[in-house]
Amino acid sequence: MTISKNQLKLITSLSQKKYRLKHKLFIAEGVKVVQELLNSSFDLETLFCTHDFTFDVSGGEVVQVSETDLKKISNLKTPNKVLGIFKIPDEKPFTNNGLIVALDAINDPGNLGTIIRLCDWFGVDELICSKDTVDCYNQKVVQASMGSLTRVSIRYVHLTDYLSETNLATFIADMDGENVYKANLPKDGILIMGNEANGVSEEIKTLISHKISIPRFGKTQETESLNVATATAILLSEFKRGV
Amino acid sequence: MTISKNQLKLITSLSQKKYRLKHKLFIAEGVKVVQELLNSSFDLETLFCTHDFTFDVSGGEVVQVSETDLKKISNLKTPNKVLGIFKIPDEKPFTNNGLIVALDAINDPGNLGTIIRLCDWFGVDELICSKDTVDCYNQKVVQASMGSLTRVSIRYVHLTDYLSETNLATFIADMDGENVYKANLPKDGILIMGNEANGVSEEIKTLISHKISIPRFGKTQETESLNVATATAILLSEFKRGV
Repeated sequence: MTISKNQLKLITSLSQKKYRLKHKLFIAEGVKVVQELLNSSFDLETLFCTHDFTFDVSGGEVVQVSETDLKKISNLKTPNKVLGIFKIPDEKPFTNNGLIVALDAINDPGNLGTIIRLCDWFGVDELICSKDTVDCYNQKVVQASMGSLTRVSIRYVHLTDYLSETNLATFIADMDGENVYKANLPKDGILIMGNEANGVSEEIKTLISHKISIPRFGKTQETESLNVATATAILLSEFKRGV
Repeated sequence: MTISKNQLKLITSLSQKKYRLKHKLFIAEGVKVVQELLNSSFDLETLFCTHDFTFDVSGGEVVQVSETDLKKISNLKTPNKVLGIFKIPDEKPFTNNGLIVALDAINDPGNLGTIIRLCDWFGVDELICSKDTVDCYNQKVVQASMGSLTRVSIRYVHLTDYLSETNLATFIADMDGENVYKANLPKDGILIMGNEANGVSEEIKTLISHKISIPRFGKTQETESLNVATATAILLSEFKRGV
């Protein structure tokens, strides 16, 4: 089979957030990520795959295509057997317990994807994103999250409203904060990570209850701060190691 | 001034490792990274900058260029005032003390850059790379390392030979290893991190003395392993937090 003009138009449009929202659809590529999505609670819309891709699909259309056709619709440098259009699931209601991660204006898709994987690894079920955080159905986020997207509940909220209303302890990383290696970290709480260039916004700083810091061991003071994904890794590890 | 044909040819050639090695030169771009290199022990060869870039240069040629000309030589999406050609310094001799990080076939420039930043943050002075690890003077590595490149000694070695000869304790991350949160980690040692897809090679596994693992807290067993940069962040934090 070949790819119809309408399908091609749809796939192209889904690289833009407004069309993902309009159609409630997103794209995932490659055997590993697509397989994880097929095995999850996410619903398939259409699967474009080469003849040697084996899969188990319940519901959704399957279109077998040539490698040449796959190349036409792929956003990867090296297209890998399959491209799937999946339905964006409804956001789940707040649970408000356990450790929650909240993101303030994270821009880089790779960083968001890595943080979703970290949440999955460390058993953080709920990821709250400010409205200006990059869309988690952006294809680069989908690829970087490696299927963890299906196991972490992600919601976009007005972050200052959300934080104003919570009763949970709230934490930001700040060089003036308490040494995280000595801090007494609770089982329930919200860890807020800020924008790559500017950190957490001033407004949010007025709303949080705790500041924690990752000590710097390097000799010079010139070292750039850690990037947001590696800082998240270290902080989640600290929250969880003692549990 | 404008950029000469020879300069343009040189800059283009430096995107390839063989020409970087031949000329012993590499490229860095953007105010922040170039400023850090200018402030370091690294030597400048040529600086191309727009008229509004202010700097303090001792030695090396300075060429003021238009934004249009900067765009021609830049590898960044948004060229930022300055592109510098710097001299690749000689590798420093082995020190063999403290915590050392060794990398086995790391392919992704962003990962190497992030790991260099982590070494800088955690006071790891020495980073050993296998010959098939991506070149640390690759421009993407230079940009991702954010100047930490100037504060960490990086050497490319035959990794199995190097590990065969060391007397230090050697560690790899392995899901069957000891829980890193319970392990007694020494002040001196070598932490070896493996390739993004395949981990540490089988040959190296036969040479190491300790296996450590980062416990998974997520409910499912499906979670992909952590990516190499975030795993390095967590392990370095564990090595250093108790010191």
